[in-house]
Amino acid sequence: MALGTLHPLVLVALQVVFVILFGVFAEYSVTKPDDAPQDTPPGKLLRMYSMFQDVHVMIFIGFGFLMTFLKRYGLSAVSLNFLLAALVLQWALIVNGFFHLHDGRIQIDVESLLGADFTAACILISFGVVLGKTSPTQLLVMAMIEVPIFAFNEVIGRRYLQVSDMGDSIFVHAFGAYFGLAVSFAMFRKDRDSENAASNTVSDLFSMIGTIFLWCFWPSFNSALAQGDVQSRAVINTYLSLCASCVVSFAVSALLDKRSKFSMEHIQNATLAGGVAVGTAADMMVQPFGAVIIGSVAGVLSVVGFSIITPALDERCRVHDTCGVHNLHGMPGVLAGIVGAIMAAMATHEQYADSLYVIFPAMEPMENATAQALAGPEHGTQAGRSAGYQGGMQILALIITLAIAIVTGLVTGAILRLRVWEQLDTADLYSDRRFFVVHDPEEGDAPPPPAGNESKTSEQL
Amino acid sequence: MALGTLHPLVLVALQVVFVILFGVFAEYSVTKPDDAPQDTPPGKLLRMYSMFQDVHVMIFIGFGFLMTFLKRYGLSAVSLNFLLAALVLQWALIVNGFFHLHDGRIQIDVESLLGADFTAACILISFGVVLGKTSPTQLLVMAMIEVPIFAFNEVIGRRYLQVSDMGDSIFVHAFGAYFGLAVSFAMFRKDRDSENAASNTVSDLFSMIGTIFLWCFWPSFNSALAQGDVQSRAVINTYLSLCASCVVSFAVSALLDKRSKFSMEHIQNATLAGGVAVGTAADMMVQPFGAVIIGSVAGVLSVVGFSIITPALDERCRVHDTCGVHNLHGMPGVLAGIVGAIMAAMATHEQYADSLYVIFPAMEPMENATAQALAGPEHGTQAGRSAGYQGGMQILALIITLAIAIVTGLVTGAILRLRVWEQLDTADLYSDRRFFVVHDPEEGDAPPPPAGNESKTSEQL
Amino acid sequence: MALGTLHPLVLVALQVVFVILFGVFAEYSVTKPDDAPQDTPPGKLLRMYSMFQDVHVMIFIGFGFLMTFLKRYGLSAVSLNFLLAALVLQWALIVNGFFHLHDGRIQIDVESLLGADFTAACILISFGVVLGKTSPTQLLVMAMIEVPIFAFNEVIGRRYLQVSDMGDSIFVHAFGAYFGLAVSFAMFRKDRDSENAASNTVSDLFSMIGTIFLWCFWPSFNSALAQGDVQSRAVINTYLSLCASCVVSFAVSALLDKRSKFSMEHIQNATLAGGVAVGTAADMMVQPFGAVIIGSVAGVLSVVGFSIITPALDERCRVHDTCGVHNLHGMPGVLAGIVGAIMAAMATHEQYADSLYVIFPAMEPMENATAQALAGPEHGTQAGRSAGYQGGMQILALIITLAIAIVTGLVTGAILRLRVWEQLDTADLYSDRRFFVVHDPEEGDAPPPPAGNESKTSEQL
Repeated sequence: MALGTLHPLVLVALQVVFVILFGVFAEYSVTKPDDAPQDTPPGKLLRMYSMFQDVHVMIFIGFGFLMTFLKRYGLSAVSLNFLLAALVLQWALIVNGFFHLHDGRIQIDVESLLGADFTAACILISFGVVLGKTSPTQLLVMAMIEVPIFAFNEVIGRRYLQVSDMGDSIFVHAFGAYFGLAVSFAMFRKDRDSENAASNTVSDLFSMIGTIFLWCFWPSFNSALAQGDVQSRAVINTYLSLCASCVVSFAVSALLDKRSKFSMEHIQNATLAGGVAVGTAADMMVQPFGAVIIGSVAGVLSVVGFSIITPALDERCRVHDTCGVHNLHGMPGVLAGIVGAIMAAMATHEQYADSLYVIFPAMEPMENATAQALAGPEHGTQAGRSAGYQGGMQILALIITLAIAIVTGLVTGAILRLRVWEQLDTADLYSDRRFFVVHDPEEGDAPPPPAGNESKTSEQL
Repeated sequence: MALGTLHPLVLVALQVVFVILFGVFAEYSVTKPDDAPQDTPPGKLLRMYSMFQDVHVMIFIGFGFLMTFLKRYGLSAVSLNFLLAALVLQWALIVNGFFHLHDGRIQIDVESLLGADFTAACILISFGVVLGKTSPTQLLVMAMIEVPIFAFNEVIGRRYLQVSDMGDSIFVHAFGAYFGLAVSFAMFRKDRDSENAASNTVSDLFSMIGTIFLWCFWPSFNSALAQGDVQSRAVINTYLSLCASCVVSFAVSALLDKRSKFSMEHIQNATLAGGVAVGTAADMMVQPFGAVIIGSVAGVLSVVGFSIITPALDERCRVHDTCGVHNLHGMPGVLAGIVGAIMAAMATHEQYADSLYVIFPAMEPMENATAQALAGPEHGTQAGRSAGYQGGMQILALIITLAIAIVTGLVTGAILRLRVWEQLDTADLYSDRRFFVVHDPEEGDAPPPPAGNESKTSEQL
Repeated sequence: MALGTLHPLVLVALQVVFVILFGVFAEYSVTKPDDAPQDTPPGKLLRMYSMFQDVHVMIFIGFGFLMTFLKRYGLSAVSLNFLLAALVLQWALIVNGFFHLHDGRIQIDVESLLGADFTAACILISFGVVLGKTSPTQLLVMAMIEVPIFAFNEVIGRRYLQVSDMGDSIFVHAFGAYFGLAVSFAMFRKDRDSENAASNTVSDLFSMIGTIFLWCFWPSFNSALAQGDVQSRAVINTYLSLCASCVVSFAVSALLDKRSKFSMEHIQNATLAGGVAVGTAADMMVQPFGAVIIGSVAGVLSVVGFSIITPALDERCRVHDTCGVHNLHGMPGVLAGIVGAIMAAMATHEQYADSLYVIFPAMEPMENATAQALAGPEHGTQAGRSAGYQGGMQILALIITLAIAIVTGLVTGAILRLRVWEQLDTADLYSDRRFFVVHDPEEGDAPPPPAGNESKTSEQL
């Protein structure tokens, strides 16, 4: 018997490890003498809490229900999303904390809680790729491996390359998507198709709960860590980009259908692509029309991805992507990185005034005293960058992110293939029944009935 | 072939127009030298964002899921609501912006985003009347026509008549309802009845998601644009009125049923009538007991409307109202306008102190210097109004709103009847299948089965 | 005919009483000359509104949908939750107001609205115990009785014993749970088992909507009434405790299943136990690792409760608990009270600095002038308590709460058993059909079909 059925013991073990690590390293953040009022723990709470809760809802309701679209995997989708996220929040507080130690201690405030939520988003994006094809133990192992790699990559990008990525489209969306796709490639199985791998009307409606909460709260995701005018801009750009990607996704969905019908898969996912695609540049001067263009392009890209690229990836490249993560997070994440680089390369002090150095601290002139302060250990040691140089660094961070995500994803996938973890049988693909107690009057928890038993569908979604 | 199946091209065209208009006219709002801190873009964000997000959820989750009550039209309801709203948000930013130009430019901040959401509420209310009876193209045309008329009517009421309507019960609810009812009258069809025009348990539960989010966040809708004591009062009055309309709706629903059963249609809709009915006077001195009375009356009115008035409107007046919008937004909106007028006519400086001139700027005495400032182009040119005069203006705004809504609604309905747009076949009424890809294992997307195929219902909601 | 079918008249009568009481006693709270800016009505709105709305969503969406897990009682669960809560909010504003009169008047601000929501939580917890076994009239009677007892007990604990219970785990969760359990004991019926008393996949998914909103917003519940550093701590502790109880609940759920499967009942409920268990001490110095331990213990306790204690309570003690309230609110509430007492007994000024006297005002030294002010009528007359004494008072409050809840619950249950209120027939247990109009194409509202009619399940959830 593989270790797969030992998932409860794995969970207990991990939780014990978390208790110990919190005990040894973690403490509440306290007000420091030179903190500005808005940067003390209560100050952060006051200005961030409402957006933090929006992001929290995105992680648990948004991602959780978005993935309930499979007609026989709804309980698993929302529940495993819940479990993985609750596990990752703790693990991320510890791992992220190690990268930002204060006197050897992990200090927790609402900003760290929010950071843990962003990390969870990344891991849940990868989860979307392998949804329905992995045992709980495999998911736990994947999450435990991915969190430190995510944190490492983000530190490279933010601290050493001093890259700006307000909505985390590079570090969360692109990373999570390509990591998951690489895992899926390494775990490719020929029996991935299944009658279960489909939605029905009820599961599509549950999925829309996730879609719409994600859509509504995305401006919070892209601006929660900003302040002042920069934050206001991030809200406006994200709102506009999402509106455009919604309208365009509907349009392209119907254009690609021979009877001009809308596809729920596109509505559930591609409508959100504008939130990803504007992420990196959310706080930059893209202007309202720029935000609308970014969202429109993302909508086209995403629907075309679902219709053409995802089937091709599956058939030709052996990359199976259950939720179409490549279309919502992968390509729009790369687009976001490119847009961010272009905007950075065009940024001038004339246009941004002092918000330029808030967004791109490494562009602050050398002679500026504040630059020295900003260029402390948290911010790297550079200053006086030209706009073009900043743009180049943005692209470099994107490339490094993709490279790290793919390489470590492949390794992770190979680890998950080890027979030491339980692998799913074909009959258990996209089915709640292997790991969840399903109450169903006609079948109970008995083995599946012979083919042709039509009454089965009446209680299971 | 009618233009109806060209809805994807219409969408593309509209989105291109939006890009151009945003490009030519729109820019981010920036802090102006004489802005008070709470009126700069970041200041507005800080004080409005949480309520703005509540309203955003009301528009997309609230209205979207409220309309999923039809057992075969859930995907269409929530998706078309999503599409229409995303379209209207952009169109409203542009149109509302034209009515409030700054140096020939449309300036966008969180307050404009919120204003666009209010506009979307109005259009979605009209959508509720014609739900299930219109093609996507017809809806797009209706929305494009309705937004400028809505904005025009609101400018008349607020700028020229200087009417107070904090919760937008006159300008959003009454306008949207009577516009939609007039459209429905003009589009009346004898085959409007259908086996599909009914709910089942699952669709009723999805609808309750919409109801309860609307109910919870309505205090934000009615107070998001207020500040200080006035805002606090708007929250309290709305909360109380909603509680009362909930309790009374349940009571009257059971009273009107011969077996004393509750009807989900009443619970989904009439419980919310208190939020509409208190809207105009939400920030006025109605006192807690007044708020509770307003909510109670609205509950009675709304349930009686569903039981008696809606069938009569359909049979005698050829006005078919799918969602019963007349009962939730129409009559309670008129009630709100009347209550607001009465409260205005009774308002004294003794009772309101200086909040009197915040709520009714035209009542500020002539000799007061501030009055001159307030009486700028944004606020009309009047000052020194008596309470009775203000009450009269409130009634006048209500009457003008109803007149504009009905006349322009009739014209819009006549336009939508043109054969140039696709009209729905009888078999497509209240059915997802005409415009959405429906996954249903027994039928696929094949044409509907012969009558008597009972297994059909097992997958479709 | 019993009075049960008179529930609409009872509702009308109650609403009339509320109107009268609001008219005689209630008014808007206004700014008082010595209020700090954050304690004026608008100041409270600014700092509390976002958390207040989170709590509001917990009450109506959270509790409402959590209880939809029964496959034939979803409409009743969410609707009766809605009705009871709207009734209790009004009744609680009045009753709580009588315990905190200002010059003989009930003054309403956002803090009173929030207090009413907390009261509603308590009554809805009791509702969970008797879910599906009570007529609407019985529920109304229970709610009207329970609210004043709840308020009385809280005044004893907070004002006279000066006990700290930030997340209301003693006064709301433990009280509501044991009151409900006592009611259920007094109303015990042998026919409580029913084929209807089960979930299916769709009802389990609806229930998860409730679970996840409760889980996400619980930090707001436990910190909405705090300020500053104390509030920040309450958010962090609750977040961590919930993460741990989620992970541990999944683990123990699978450990107790012979095929290592997860049970949705545990996922829906036990994952939340950490929010209850950390409630009393949420703002105390439990440290991050302490919060994680509390959540872990609560998760074990809660799942074991569902698996072992609930069946035993039912069979041996004649206490039937439909939602397993004892496992989510009962035992974790008691655990919270004990943890709070231990933390109080260990509290030092060295560790808490001045937040010690914010949390435990009675521990402020006698000679401190502020203590005299704090020790006004609202805060009792004690000061200078030792930590051990405070810990003892915390335990005393817990014991008094349990005693009052059980005794008054037994009396209430006996009252509800009176034949004057309609009692449910066996066939009506856990069924929407007795009190709600159910649209179901195969049956309409006709009496239930003979056994073996399998098509019945296809429309009812």
